[in-house]
Amino acid sequence: MEVDFSNIKVIGFDADDTLWVNETYFRDTEERFAELLEDYETKNKVDQELFKMEMANLEIYGYGIKGFMLSMIESALDLSNNQISQKTIAKILDLGKRMIAHPVELLDGVEEVLSQLVDKYRLIVLTKGDLLDQERKLEKSGLSKYFHHVEVLSDKKESNYSNLLEHLKIDVKEFLMIGNSLKSDVLPILNIGAKAVHVPFHTTWAHEMVSEEDELVNNHLKLNSLKDILKYLDN
Amino acid sequence: MEVDFSNIKVIGFDADDTLWVNETYFRDTEERFAELLEDYETKNKVDQELFKMEMANLEIYGYGIKGFMLSMIESALDLSNNQISQKTIAKILDLGKRMIAHPVELLDGVEEVLSQLVDKYRLIVLTKGDLLDQERKLEKSGLSKYFHHVEVLSDKKESNYSNLLEHLKIDVKEFLMIGNSLKSDVLPILNIGAKAVHVPFHTTWAHEMVSEEDELVNNHLKLNSLKDILKYLDN
Repeated sequence: MEVDFSNIKVIGFDADDTLWVNETYFRDTEERFAELLEDYETKNKVDQELFKMEMANLEIYGYGIKGFMLSMIESALDLSNNQISQKTIAKILDLGKRMIAHPVELLDGVEEVLSQLVDKYRLIVLTKGDLLDQERKLEKSGLSKYFHHVEVLSDKKESNYSNLLEHLKIDVKEFLMIGNSLKSDVLPILNIGAKAVHVPFHTTWAHEMVSEEDELVNNHLKLNSLKDILKYLDN
Repeated sequence: MEVDFSNIKVIGFDADDTLWVNETYFRDTEERFAELLEDYETKNKVDQELFKMEMANLEIYGYGIKGFMLSMIESALDLSNNQISQKTIAKILDLGKRMIAHPVELLDGVEEVLSQLVDKYRLIVLTKGDLLDQERKLEKSGLSKYFHHVEVLSDKKESNYSNLLEHLKIDVKEFLMIGNSLKSDVLPILNIGAKAVHVPFHTTWAHEMVSEEDELVNNHLKLNSLKDILKYLDN
Protein backbone atom coordinates (compact mmCIF):
# COMPACT_ATOMS: atom_id res chain seq x y z
CA MET A 1 0.00 0.00 0.00
CA GLU A 2 0.99 3.63 -0.32
CA VAL A 3 2.04 5.42 2.82
CA ASP A 4 3.19 9.01 2.98
CA PHE A 5 6.35 9.39 5.06
CA SER A 6 7.10 12.98 4.06
CA ASN A 7 6.27 14.41 7.50
CA ILE A 8 8.36 11.94 9.45
CA LYS A 9 11.07 13.41 11.66
CA VAL A 10 11.48 10.78 14.37
CA ILE A 11 11.79 7.03 13.82
CA GLY A 12 11.31 4.55 16.64
CA PHE A 13 12.85 1.11 16.29
CA ASP A 14 11.73 -1.91 18.20
CA ALA A 15 14.81 -3.89 19.30
CA ASP A 16 14.17 -7.64 19.82
CA ASP A 17 13.70 -9.33 16.43
CA THR A 18 13.84 -5.95 14.68
CA LEU A 19 17.45 -4.91 15.31
CA TRP A 20 18.75 -8.22 16.64
CA VAL A 21 17.74 -11.88 17.03
CA ASN A 22 15.75 -12.70 20.15
CA GLU A 23 12.79 -15.04 19.73
CA THR A 24 15.06 -17.75 18.30
CA TYR A 25 16.87 -18.06 21.65
CA PHE A 26 13.57 -18.43 23.49
CA ARG A 27 12.54 -21.17 21.06
CA ASP A 28 15.89 -22.95 21.48
CA THR A 29 15.51 -22.77 25.25
CA GLU A 30 11.97 -24.12 25.03
CA GLU A 31 13.37 -27.09 23.08
CA ARG A 32 15.94 -27.75 25.82
CA PHE A 33 13.27 -27.31 28.47
CA ALA A 34 11.01 -29.89 26.79
CA GLU A 35 13.94 -32.32 26.64
CA LEU A 36 14.50 -31.89 30.39
CA LEU A 37 10.86 -32.81 30.95
CA GLU A 38 10.58 -35.62 28.40
CA ASP A 39 10.09 -38.27 31.12
CA TYR A 40 6.89 -36.54 32.18
CA GLU A 41 5.19 -35.08 29.12
CA THR A 42 5.31 -34.75 25.34
CA LYS A 43 7.08 -31.74 23.87
CA ASN A 44 3.75 -30.41 22.71
CA LYS A 45 2.19 -30.58 26.17
CA VAL A 46 5.28 -29.04 27.78
CA ASP A 47 5.18 -26.14 25.30
CA GLN A 48 1.50 -25.56 25.94
CA GLU A 49 1.80 -25.66 29.71
CA LEU A 50 4.86 -23.40 29.75
CA PHE A 51 3.02 -20.86 27.62
CA LYS A 52 -0.01 -21.00 29.93
CA MET A 53 2.28 -20.47 32.91
CA GLU A 54 3.96 -17.49 31.23
CA MET A 55 0.59 -15.93 30.52
CA ALA A 56 -0.60 -16.56 34.09
CA ASN A 57 2.57 -14.90 35.40
CA LEU A 58 2.83 -12.09 32.85
CA GLU A 59 1.04 -9.51 34.96
CA ILE A 60 3.33 -10.07 37.93
CA TYR A 61 6.66 -10.74 36.19
CA GLY A 62 6.32 -8.69 33.00
CA TYR A 63 8.42 -9.45 29.91
CA GLY A 64 11.97 -10.72 29.90
CA ILE A 65 14.24 -13.64 30.63
CA LYS A 66 14.04 -13.63 34.44
CA GLY A 67 10.27 -14.04 34.43
CA PHE A 68 10.66 -16.73 31.77
CA MET A 69 13.13 -18.59 34.02
CA LEU A 70 10.74 -18.41 36.97
CA SER A 71 7.87 -19.67 34.80
CA MET A 72 10.00 -22.58 33.54
CA ILE A 73 10.79 -23.61 37.12
CA GLU A 74 7.15 -23.36 38.19
CA SER A 75 6.05 -25.29 35.10
CA ALA A 76 8.63 -28.02 35.72
CA LEU A 77 7.34 -28.46 39.28
CA ASP A 78 3.72 -28.53 38.09
CA LEU A 79 4.21 -30.82 35.09
CA SER A 80 6.18 -33.38 37.13
CA ASN A 81 3.91 -33.21 40.19
CA ASN A 82 6.94 -31.99 42.14
CA GLN A 83 8.99 -34.99 40.95
CA ILE A 84 11.41 -33.02 38.78
CA SER A 85 14.95 -33.49 40.08
CA GLN A 86 16.87 -30.73 41.82
CA LYS A 87 19.60 -31.10 39.21
CA THR A 88 17.09 -30.37 36.49
CA ILE A 89 16.06 -27.18 38.27
CA ALA A 90 19.73 -26.19 38.37
CA LYS A 91 19.86 -26.88 34.63
CA ILE A 92 16.88 -24.61 34.04
CA LEU A 93 18.70 -21.81 35.88
CA ASP A 94 21.68 -22.45 33.59
CA LEU A 95 19.54 -22.29 30.47
CA GLY A 96 18.28 -18.86 31.51
CA LYS A 97 21.72 -17.56 32.42
CA ARG A 98 23.00 -18.67 29.03
CA MET A 99 20.21 -16.71 27.34
CA ILE A 100 21.17 -13.59 29.28
CA ALA A 101 24.84 -14.02 28.36
CA HIS A 102 24.16 -14.75 24.70
CA PRO A 103 26.05 -12.53 22.22
CA VAL A 104 23.93 -10.08 20.26
CA GLU A 105 23.39 -11.02 16.61
CA LEU A 106 22.34 -8.08 14.48
CA LEU A 107 19.74 -8.70 11.81
CA ASP A 108 20.56 -8.24 8.16
CA GLY A 109 21.00 -4.64 7.03
CA VAL A 110 20.51 -3.01 10.45
CA GLU A 111 23.79 -1.14 10.58
CA GLU A 112 23.39 -0.01 6.95
CA VAL A 113 19.87 1.32 7.58
CA LEU A 114 20.76 3.14 10.80
CA SER A 115 23.89 4.73 9.36
CA GLN A 116 21.96 5.99 6.34
CA LEU A 117 19.06 7.41 8.35
CA VAL A 118 20.92 8.89 11.30
CA ASP A 119 21.68 12.24 9.66
CA LYS A 120 18.15 12.88 8.41
CA TYR A 121 16.01 11.61 11.27
CA ARG A 122 16.04 11.47 15.04
CA LEU A 123 16.31 7.74 15.79
CA ILE A 124 15.11 6.22 19.04
CA VAL A 125 14.82 2.69 20.42
CA LEU A 126 11.50 1.67 21.96
CA THR A 127 11.61 -1.75 23.44
CA LYS A 128 9.76 -3.63 26.13
CA GLY A 129 11.19 -6.11 28.56
CA ASP A 130 13.80 -6.15 31.23
CA LEU A 131 15.60 -2.85 31.71
CA LEU A 132 19.08 -4.20 32.45
CA ASP A 133 18.86 -6.88 29.79
CA GLN A 134 17.83 -4.43 27.06
CA GLU A 135 20.49 -1.89 28.06
CA ARG A 136 23.10 -4.63 28.00
CA LYS A 137 22.02 -5.84 24.56
CA LEU A 138 22.13 -2.33 23.15
CA GLU A 139 25.64 -1.86 24.48
CA LYS A 140 26.80 -5.23 23.13
CA SER A 141 25.20 -4.41 19.76
CA GLY A 142 27.45 -1.40 19.16
CA LEU A 143 24.37 0.49 17.92
CA SER A 144 24.06 3.03 20.78
CA LYS A 145 25.81 5.72 18.74
CA TYR A 146 22.89 5.93 16.31
CA PHE A 147 20.22 6.65 18.89
CA HIS A 148 19.18 9.92 20.50
CA HIS A 149 17.16 8.12 23.09
CA VAL A 150 16.49 4.62 24.33
CA GLU A 151 13.32 3.82 26.20
CA VAL A 152 12.55 0.49 27.80
CA LEU A 153 8.80 0.26 28.38
CA SER A 154 7.06 -2.18 30.69
CA ASP A 155 4.51 -2.71 27.92
CA LYS A 156 3.71 -1.38 24.46
CA LYS A 157 0.11 -0.35 24.68
CA GLU A 158 -1.31 2.87 23.25
CA SER A 159 -0.97 4.67 26.56
CA ASN A 160 2.71 3.69 26.87
CA TYR A 161 3.40 5.19 23.46
CA SER A 162 1.28 8.31 23.98
CA ASN A 163 2.91 9.10 27.30
CA LEU A 164 6.36 8.62 25.88
CA LEU A 165 5.80 10.76 22.78
CA GLU A 166 4.39 13.50 24.99
CA HIS A 167 7.34 13.25 27.34
CA LEU A 168 9.83 13.40 24.46
CA LYS A 169 7.81 16.22 22.84
CA ILE A 170 7.36 14.26 19.62
CA ASP A 171 4.38 15.10 17.40
CA VAL A 172 2.50 11.87 16.56
CA LYS A 173 2.23 13.06 12.94
CA GLU A 174 6.01 13.14 12.70
CA PHE A 175 6.56 9.73 14.26
CA LEU A 176 7.18 6.43 12.51
CA MET A 177 7.57 3.15 14.38
CA ILE A 178 9.36 0.16 12.82
CA GLY A 179 9.07 -3.28 14.36
CA ASN A 180 8.39 -6.97 13.94
CA SER A 181 5.25 -7.22 16.05
CA LEU A 182 1.87 -6.21 14.65
CA LYS A 183 0.43 -6.30 18.15
CA SER A 184 3.11 -4.23 19.89
CA ASP A 185 4.79 -2.13 17.21
CA VAL A 186 2.09 -1.50 14.63
CA LEU A 187 -1.51 -1.57 15.92
CA PRO A 188 -1.12 0.71 18.98
CA ILE A 189 0.94 3.13 16.86
CA LEU A 190 -1.75 3.35 14.16
CA ASN A 191 -4.37 3.79 16.86
CA ILE A 192 -2.68 6.90 18.25
CA GLY A 193 -2.35 8.41 14.77
CA ALA A 194 1.34 7.80 14.07
CA LYS A 195 2.77 5.74 11.20
CA ALA A 196 4.11 2.21 11.34
CA VAL A 197 6.19 -0.18 9.28
CA HIS A 198 5.98 -3.91 9.92
CA VAL A 199 9.10 -5.99 9.25
CA PRO A 200 8.15 -9.53 10.26
CA PHE A 201 10.70 -11.85 11.84
CA HIS A 202 10.49 -15.50 10.83
CA THR A 203 9.38 -16.49 14.33
CA THR A 204 6.66 -14.82 16.40
CA TRP A 205 5.85 -15.56 20.03
CA ALA A 206 2.24 -16.75 20.39
CA HIS A 207 1.54 -13.87 22.79
CA GLU A 208 2.37 -11.37 20.01
CA MET A 209 0.10 -12.96 17.40
CA VAL A 210 -2.89 -11.00 16.10
CA SER A 211 -5.35 -11.75 13.37
CA GLU A 212 -4.37 -10.17 10.06
CA GLU A 213 -8.05 -9.40 9.70
CA ASP A 214 -7.86 -6.68 12.28
CA GLU A 215 -9.30 -3.68 10.48
CA LEU A 216 -6.26 -1.51 11.09
CA VAL A 217 -3.70 -4.05 10.04
CA ASN A 218 -3.84 -2.98 6.41
CA ASN A 219 -3.20 0.66 7.14
CA HIS A 220 0.59 0.32 7.29
CA LEU A 221 3.57 -0.68 5.20
CA LYS A 222 4.86 -4.25 5.44
CA LEU A 223 8.43 -4.99 4.36
CA ASN A 224 10.30 -8.25 3.97
CA SER A 225 13.58 -6.76 5.09
CA LEU A 226 14.51 -3.73 7.16
CA LYS A 227 16.77 -2.56 4.30
CA ASP A 228 13.71 -1.95 2.12
CA ILE A 229 12.79 1.03 4.30
CA LEU A 230 15.54 2.98 2.57
CA LYS A 231 13.40 3.05 -0.57
CA TYR A 232 10.68 4.94 1.30
CA LEU A 233 12.67 7.41 3.38
CA ASP A 234 15.16 10.20 2.61
CA ASN A 235 18.73 9.09 3.13
CA MET B 1 25.91 21.11 58.43
CA GLU B 2 24.77 24.09 56.42
CA VAL B 3 23.72 23.46 52.85
CA ASP B 4 22.42 26.12 50.48
CA PHE B 5 19.30 25.01 48.68
CA SER B 6 18.39 28.41 47.21
CA ASN B 7 19.23 27.37 43.61
CA ILE B 8 17.24 24.17 43.68
CA LYS B 9 14.50 23.84 41.06
CA VAL B 10 14.22 20.08 40.61
CA ILE B 11 14.03 17.49 43.39
CA GLY B 12 14.63 13.80 42.74
CA PHE B 13 13.21 11.30 45.18
CA ASP B 14 14.45 7.78 45.57
CA ALA B 15 11.47 5.45 46.00
CA ASP B 16 12.24 2.23 47.92
CA ASP B 17 12.71 3.05 51.62
CA THR B 18 12.44 6.78 50.88
CA LEU B 19 8.80 7.06 49.77
CA TRP B 20 7.64 3.60 50.82
CA VAL B 21 8.77 0.54 52.79
CA ASN B 22 10.84 -1.98 50.83
CA GLU B 23 13.88 -3.42 52.61
CA THR B 24 11.68 -4.71 55.43
CA TYR B 25 9.94 -7.12 53.03
CA PHE B 26 13.26 -8.45 51.80
CA ARG B 27 14.36 -9.02 55.40
CA ASP B 28 11.08 -10.77 56.23
CA THR B 29 11.48 -13.00 53.17
CA GLU B 30 15.08 -13.79 54.14
CA GLU B 31 13.75 -14.93 57.53
CA ARG B 32 11.24 -17.26 55.89
CA PHE B 33 13.92 -18.49 53.49
CA ALA B 34 16.27 -19.36 56.37
CA GLU B 35 13.41 -21.26 58.06
CA LEU B 36 12.88 -23.29 54.88
CA LEU B 37 16.57 -24.24 54.97
CA GLU B 38 16.92 -24.82 58.71
CA ASP B 39 17.52 -28.56 58.24
CA TYR B 40 20.70 -27.76 56.30
CA GLU B 41 22.31 -24.64 57.73
CA THR B 42 22.10 -22.02 60.49
CA LYS B 43 20.22 -18.82 59.77
CA ASN B 44 23.50 -16.93 59.82
CA LYS B 45 25.08 -19.16 57.19
CA VAL B 46 21.97 -19.10 55.01
CA ASP B 47 21.94 -15.28 55.15
CA GLN B 48 25.60 -15.08 54.22
CA GLU B 49 25.35 -17.54 51.34
CA LEU B 50 22.22 -15.93 49.94
CA PHE B 51 23.94 -12.53 49.98
CA LYS B 52 27.00 -13.98 48.21
CA MET B 53 24.72 -15.52 45.60
CA GLU B 54 22.91 -12.21 45.08
CA MET B 55 26.23 -10.43 44.59
CA ALA B 56 27.48 -13.12 42.18
CA ASN B 57 24.26 -12.77 40.17
CA LEU B 58 23.88 -8.99 40.41
CA GLU B 59 25.60 -8.25 37.13
CA ILE B 60 23.37 -10.63 35.20
CA TYR B 61 20.05 -10.18 37.02
CA GLY B 62 20.30 -6.57 38.21
CA TYR B 63 18.18 -5.29 41.10
CA GLY B 64 14.68 -6.40 41.95
CA ILE B 65 12.51 -9.20 43.26
CA LYS B 66 12.76 -11.58 40.27
CA GLY B 67 16.54 -11.77 40.50
CA PHE B 68 16.20 -12.21 44.27
CA MET B 69 13.82 -15.15 43.70
CA LEU B 70 16.24 -16.79 41.27
CA SER B 71 19.12 -16.30 43.72
CA MET B 72 17.07 -17.85 46.54
CA ILE B 73 16.38 -20.92 44.41
CA GLU B 74 20.03 -21.27 43.37
CA SER B 75 21.15 -20.80 46.98
CA ALA B 76 18.69 -23.40 48.23
CA LEU B 77 20.03 -25.94 45.72
CA ASP B 78 23.64 -25.11 46.64
CA LEU B 79 23.19 -25.03 50.41
CA SER B 80 21.34 -28.37 50.44
CA ASN B 81 23.64 -30.07 47.92
CA ASN B 82 20.60 -30.46 45.68
CA GLN B 83 18.63 -32.12 48.50
CA ILE B 84 16.11 -29.33 49.01
CA SER B 85 12.62 -30.63 48.33
CA GLN B 86 10.64 -29.65 45.28
CA LYS B 87 7.87 -28.41 47.57
CA THR B 88 10.32 -26.05 49.19
CA ILE B 89 11.26 -24.63 45.81
CA ALA B 90 7.57 -24.05 45.14
CA LYS B 91 7.40 -22.25 48.50
CA ILE B 92 10.30 -20.00 47.50
CA LEU B 93 8.40 -19.04 44.35
CA ASP B 94 5.41 -18.21 46.56
CA LEU B 95 7.52 -16.06 48.87
CA GLY B 96 8.66 -13.99 45.89
CA LYS B 97 5.20 -13.68 44.40
CA ARG B 98 3.93 -12.47 47.75
CA MET B 99 6.61 -9.77 47.81
CA ILE B 100 5.56 -8.59 44.35
CA ALA B 101 1.90 -8.49 45.38
CA HIS B 102 2.55 -6.72 48.69
CA PRO B 103 0.56 -3.51 49.25
CA VAL B 104 2.58 -0.29 49.21
CA GLU B 105 3.09 1.27 52.66
CA LEU B 106 4.01 4.93 52.46
CA LEU B 107 6.61 6.21 54.90
CA ASP B 108 5.74 8.84 57.46
CA GLY B 109 5.15 12.33 56.09
CA VAL B 110 5.61 11.46 52.41
CA GLU B 111 2.27 12.74 51.18
CA GLU B 112 2.59 15.91 53.29
CA VAL B 113 6.07 16.66 51.93
CA LEU B 114 5.15 16.05 48.30
CA SER B 115 1.95 18.07 48.47
CA GLN B 116 3.80 21.02 50.00
CA LEU B 117 6.68 20.97 47.51
CA VAL B 118 4.81 20.20 44.31
CA ASP B 119 3.91 23.82 43.50
CA LYS B 120 7.41 25.22 44.03
CA TYR B 121 9.63 22.52 42.56
CA ARG B 122 9.64 20.04 39.72
CA LEU B 123 9.50 16.66 41.46
CA ILE B 124 10.79 13.47 39.87
CA VAL B 125 11.24 9.87 41.00
CA LEU B 126 14.61 8.23 40.39
CA THR B 127 14.62 4.63 41.38
CA LYS B 128 16.58 1.56 40.43
CA GLY B 129 15.30 -1.96 40.09
CA ASP B 130 12.71 -3.74 38.09
CA LEU B 131 10.79 -1.53 35.68
CA LEU B 132 7.37 -3.17 35.98
CA ASP B 133 7.66 -3.59 39.74
CA GLN B 134 8.56 0.05 40.32
CA GLU B 135 5.83 1.32 37.98
CA ARG B 136 3.32 -0.87 39.78
CA LYS B 137 4.40 0.39 43.20
CA LEU B 138 4.15 4.00 42.09
CA GLU B 139 0.65 3.39 40.81
CA LYS B 140 -0.41 1.58 43.99
CA SER B 141 1.11 4.39 46.08
CA GLY B 142 -1.24 7.02 44.70
CA LEU B 143 1.73 9.41 44.45
CA SER B 144 1.99 9.59 40.64
CA LYS B 145 0.14 12.92 40.55
CA TYR B 146 3.01 14.70 42.29
CA PHE B 147 5.69 13.74 39.79
CA HIS B 148 6.66 15.33 36.48
CA HIS B 149 8.74 12.36 35.56
CA VAL B 150 9.55 8.87 36.76
CA GLU B 151 12.77 7.20 35.77
CA VAL B 152 13.67 3.62 36.60
CA LEU B 153 17.44 3.21 36.25
CA SER B 154 19.30 -0.08 35.96
CA ASP B 155 21.83 1.34 38.41
CA LYS B 156 22.54 4.56 40.27
CA LYS B 157 26.09 5.36 39.40
CA GLU B 158 27.36 8.82 38.49
CA SER B 159 27.01 8.12 34.77
CA ASN B 160 23.38 7.03 35.18
CA TYR B 161 22.58 10.31 36.94
CA SER B 162 24.60 12.50 34.53
CA ASN B 163 22.98 10.97 31.48
CA LEU B 164 19.53 11.37 32.95
CA LEU B 165 19.98 15.00 34.00
CA GLU B 166 21.32 15.80 30.54
CA HIS B 167 18.42 14.00 28.91
CA LEU B 168 15.88 15.85 31.08
CA LYS B 169 17.77 19.13 30.55
CA ILE B 170 18.26 19.64 34.29
CA ASP B 171 21.20 21.78 35.44
CA VAL B 172 23.16 19.86 38.11
CA LYS B 173 23.36 23.06 40.18
CA GLU B 174 19.58 23.16 40.36
CA PHE B 175 19.16 19.50 41.28
CA LEU B 176 18.63 18.01 44.73
CA MET B 177 18.38 14.26 45.32
CA ILE B 178 16.68 12.84 48.42
CA GLY B 179 17.12 9.20 49.38
CA ASN B 180 17.91 6.63 52.03
CA SER B 181 21.10 5.22 50.50
CA LEU B 182 24.42 7.01 50.92
CA LYS B 183 25.90 4.79 48.22
CA SER B 184 23.17 5.22 45.59
CA ASP B 185 21.37 8.46 46.41
CA VAL B 186 24.04 10.68 47.97
CA LEU B 187 27.65 9.97 46.98
CA PRO B 188 27.23 9.80 43.17
CA ILE B 189 25.05 12.93 43.33
CA LEU B 190 27.68 14.89 45.26
CA ASN B 191 30.34 13.65 42.85
CA ILE B 192 28.54 15.12 39.84
CA GLY B 193 28.11 18.46 41.60
CA ALA B 194 24.45 18.29 42.58
CA LYS B 195 23.05 18.42 46.11
CA ALA B 196 21.83 15.54 48.23
CA VAL B 197 19.81 14.91 51.36
CA HIS B 198 20.15 11.62 53.20
CA VAL B 199 17.10 10.31 55.05
CA PRO B 200 18.20 6.94 56.48
CA PHE B 201 15.74 4.08 56.73
CA HIS B 202 16.07 1.87 59.80
CA THR B 203 17.24 -1.05 57.68
CA THR B 204 19.93 -0.95 54.98
CA TRP B 205 20.79 -3.78 52.61
CA ALA B 206 24.45 -4.80 53.05
CA HIS B 207 25.10 -4.04 49.37
CA GLU B 208 24.15 -0.40 49.98
CA MET B 209 26.43 0.08 52.98
CA VAL B 210 29.35 2.51 52.73
CA SER B 211 31.79 3.74 55.31
CA GLU B 212 30.72 7.02 56.89
CA GLU B 213 34.38 7.99 56.66
CA ASP B 214 34.12 8.46 52.93
CA GLU B 215 35.40 11.99 52.44
CA LEU B 216 32.32 13.20 50.63
CA VAL B 217 29.84 11.79 53.07
CA ASN B 218 29.89 14.89 55.21
CA ASN B 219 29.11 17.25 52.39
CA HIS B 220 25.37 16.75 52.55
CA LEU B 221 22.40 17.16 54.84
CA LYS B 222 21.23 14.19 56.89
CA LEU B 223 17.69 14.17 58.25
CA ASN B 224 15.93 11.81 60.61
CA SER B 225 12.61 12.15 58.84
CA LEU B 226 11.60 13.19 55.36
CA LYS B 227 9.27 15.79 56.90
CA ASP B 228 12.26 17.75 58.17
CA ILE B 229 13.11 18.73 54.59
CA LEU B 230 10.26 21.25 54.76
CA LYS B 231 12.39 23.35 57.13
CA TYR B 232 15.04 23.75 54.46
CA LEU B 233 13.01 24.31 51.32
CA ASP B 234 10.42 26.88 50.22
CA ASN B 235 6.91 25.58 50.56
